Amino acid sequence: MGIALGQLAVRFGCELSGDPDVSVDHVAPLHSAGPGALSFLANPRLASQLAATRAAAVVLEPRVAASCPVASLITSNPHALFARIATELHPLPPLQPGIHPSAIVDARAQVDPSCQVGPFAVIAADVVIGPRCLVGPSCVIAAGARVGPDSRLLSRVTLEHGVVLGARALVHSGAVIGADGFGLALERGRWLKVPQVGGVRIGDDVEIGANTTIDRGAMEDTVISDGVKLDNQIQVGHNVFIGRHTAIAACTGISGSVRIGERCMIAGGCGLAGHLEICDDVVLTGMSMVAHSVTSPGVYTSVIPVEPIRHWWRVWTTLKMLAARERTGRARQPRAEQLPQEPVPQEPRDE
Amino acid sequence: MGIALGQLAVRFGCELSGDPDVSVDHVAPLHSAGPGALSFLANPRLASQLAATRAAAVVLEPRVAASCPVASLITSNPHALFARIATELHPLPPLQPGIHPSAIVDARAQVDPSCQVGPFAVIAADVVIGPRCLVGPSCVIAAGARVGPDSRLLSRVTLEHGVVLGARALVHSGAVIGADGFGLALERGRWLKVPQVGGVRIGDDVEIGANTTIDRGAMEDTVISDGVKLDNQIQVGHNVFIGRHTAIAACTGISGSVRIGERCMIAGGCGLAGHLEICDDVVLTGMSMVAHSVTSPGVYTSVIPVEPIRHWWRVWTTLKMLAARERTGRARQPRAEQLPQEPVPQEPRDE
Amino acid sequence: MGIALGQLAVRFGCELSGDPDVSVDHVAPLHSAGPGALSFLANPRLASQLAATRAAAVVLEPRVAASCPVASLITSNPHALFARIATELHPLPPLQPGIHPSAIVDARAQVDPSCQVGPFAVIAADVVIGPRCLVGPSCVIAAGARVGPDSRLLSRVTLEHGVVLGARALVHSGAVIGADGFGLALERGRWLKVPQVGGVRIGDDVEIGANTTIDRGAMEDTVISDGVKLDNQIQVGHNVFIGRHTAIAACTGISGSVRIGERCMIAGGCGLAGHLEICDDVVLTGMSMVAHSVTSPGVYTSVIPVEPIRHWWRVWTTLKMLAARERTGRARQPRAEQLPQEPVPQEPRDE
Repeated sequence: MGIALGQLAVRFGCELSGDPDVSVDHVAPLHSAGPGALSFLANPRLASQLAATRAAAVVLEPRVAASCPVASLITSNPHALFARIATELHPLPPLQPGIHPSAIVDARAQVDPSCQVGPFAVIAADVVIGPRCLVGPSCVIAAGARVGPDSRLLSRVTLEHGVVLGARALVHSGAVIGADGFGLALERGRWLKVPQVGGVRIGDDVEIGANTTIDRGAMEDTVISDGVKLDNQIQVGHNVFIGRHTAIAACTGISGSVRIGERCMIAGGCGLAGHLEICDDVVLTGMSMVAHSVTSPGVYTSVIPVEPIRHWWRVWTTLKMLAARERTGRARQPRAEQLPQEPVPQEPRDE
Repeated sequence: MGIALGQLAVRFGCELSGDPDVSVDHVAPLHSAGPGALSFLANPRLASQLAATRAAAVVLEPRVAASCPVASLITSNPHALFARIATELHPLPPLQPGIHPSAIVDARAQVDPSCQVGPFAVIAADVVIGPRCLVGPSCVIAAGARVGPDSRLLSRVTLEHGVVLGARALVHSGAVIGADGFGLALERGRWLKVPQVGGVRIGDDVEIGANTTIDRGAMEDTVISDGVKLDNQIQVGHNVFIGRHTAIAACTGISGSVRIGERCMIAGGCGLAGHLEICDDVVLTGMSMVAHSVTSPGVYTSVIPVEPIRHWWRVWTTLKMLAARERTGRARQPRAEQLPQEPVPQEPRDE
Repeated sequence: MGIALGQLAVRFGCELSGDPDVSVDHVAPLHSAGPGALSFLANPRLASQLAATRAAAVVLEPRVAASCPVASLITSNPHALFARIATELHPLPPLQPGIHPSAIVDARAQVDPSCQVGPFAVIAADVVIGPRCLVGPSCVIAAGARVGPDSRLLSRVTLEHGVVLGARALVHSGAVIGADGFGLALERGRWLKVPQVGGVRIGDDVEIGANTTIDRGAMEDTVISDGVKLDNQIQVGHNVFIGRHTAIAACTGISGSVRIGERCMIAGGCGLAGHLEICDDVVLTGMSMVAHSVTSPGVYTSVIPVEPIRHWWRVWTTLKMLAARERTGRARQPRAEQLPQEPVPQEPRDE
């Protein structure tokens, strides 16, 4: 199961410093790695851990190679090389082709014989599942959905009717793809449901996190392009378009009809208001709110970091007073010391 | 399957401009509609698309009827009329009454024979399910829960024990209704669980989005009133009350014992602190934080939209300096230029 | 089923005011309690309800005992005592030991015979489940996972491979524990997946809310310590450590490698950026954003509560103008009255 460093250097075209016959058989972090472990150093903040590492070898950049006490694989992009080697050292468990006897597969579904379909999976009529796919326990694949080759749906994934998933998809447990978009029309104070007749089209090499939801389009399709990576508990509204190789971290919510460009990096907990456009190569920091289109690449934020509550409250009330004074033009208004006291902190629990 | 425009005009009591024998058989957006397509125009920003549309007919307001190049159905509320016609053109697939042989239905449960119960559904003792309901694959309906007529629970919906769901409910996949509220009591630094013995009562015509969670009450019930529409991944805490015809968009979190009025519109990603009250007809914009009760109808916000991170950081540190200067009363404090530099942007991924 | 007050006073070592032979058989809130009901008063805001209560008895503090019109159990911590008594009055339904015939349990799994395994549960090879556990309907327990004694997994819980859960865990429906962390490496504009080979270790007495997700570690484990309480729809990233007896409310997102101390209380909707540390005894109010480590106990916030949108917009644009004026040093800039108008409010729905 181990791989010799010399072999890795040849296969991945990187420089090796150290004994080519040393082999590695698993990955571990610098600080806890031991014999047989491959580690990596990409984050400069962790450089201090390098000197003490007991890893068998470390993947690192040329500029830190000299300070590595053990063997090293030297590359301009240690994180990427590490990812590639780690994928070899920790391969996915091989598929066990076949349909579990408890699974229910409609006679009109086409499931390639190389697929593994787990217990209690439900595969409806006119579904097409390409070769070498995994459909995990209790997945529900509704009528007409299609799954490209080498895709893996872990447990309890739902693909609603007609959803199209590309090749090499990885969909984590609990994800729901193709539920109705939130389309409502107001009529005399009541909401009418607007049928959601679009679909969801997902490209190749897309990862979708646990309990993430991607809604079907209202009339056209919601589109997730090749190479997009979505973390857990993300909400993608109807008619959203996400461009290639964009990565989005957990808990971000994307309102309907938003169009996101390529290679964007959106941190966790962000919110994007409806119908806006984000151009290519935009980075959003965590919990940012996008209310208007972003038309230039760059890093954007609207974050206010926490402060001690008493201090925060004084800052905020003083700022509101300054704004009020500026607007009324009065020379003096009540001084900040006379402002209302801070609120009682809300406990996270509920009596 | 097509319906003639003349027939639609009569049935829905609206004015028709154009050939009454033209028929429509599906809906499509203005910009991509073709023969047989019904489209609509409600958003003034899309008015420019009207001139070029190739739809068979467009539902629109009187004031834009003259500029429509094709047939039109004229009404004061195009979105609502469109919703009604679209519902006829795209009807739900008819139920296939019967209980799938793999489903497990307790002998003491009452499931109307007109219901469709899907594979691997579990229906416990003393459950009552009214006529013409759909219980989708892998749904779990715990003891004593009740579901009103014409309701549809898509895949993997959980109703915990005793939950009551009204008529015509639509519950999307992965929703969990009736889990314990987050009730904890602190005792010498440890948390004791407070049993959650209330229930959940949900009115008629309620839609509940994918992976949304609605907790049962601590001692009394959590209540969702008639006509409420909840999007995906919403959290409703214990003892919450939501008034009729309120719509809430995805990812909003509602703390325990909050009371929300009727006809409110709450955008996505909002947070409502515990025990507060929102009166009728309140609109919250996306990602707003409600920390105190809102007692007057209107539109509320606390949103700060993103800016380029360097600019944002300067604004925020300058504001904090102005607040500090105001509070200390000193004439000059360090100028903004001397303030700390902006933070390194946080990448959405994690090494 | 009822318990006499005298018996409760003895068993829980508290003072009783009133007839020791009166018995209680359920709990109810002060305002709606009737005969046989036990209520409690811990929140001073509810003190006014005490005078009118019709409860059989009330758990309360000594200082309000005199104003209680009915029997009372007197203690310094009414909420905790109430929790203990309520747990006796409303015990969990007893387990029905046995494996449902529809469940699929691998021959190499060890499930204690005292466990109840529900319909359609899937228990893979090398899983070990301790005595007196509940594995609810459609739960999926992947290879090598371990569950400590007296734990309850309600419906549709997924434990991915190798996850370790302690004793007396309570995991609500839809939770996913052990999905891959969001580990990606960028290589020439594309994302490579970094295998997530760590696990998840969860201590004793942990509660995990509905649809909450806890990711497995990248190389080491994600750790949830004893007594931690997690509400619904929380996201815990890879390699996170949460210290003992910390409680976190719904919809909070914790980025990878965050370290949270003991006895923290984190309200709902908060966001914690990656790799930071929160010391013991920190309280965060709802929707706060933590961008840097917090090194002193206390209450922290970054919340801006909602205002009417027109007012809010004026405040915010005025503040930005003040910041710009301060930075440029110019005496006068455009007055606030000349600033752009407020934005059109975003509706929660999407046309």
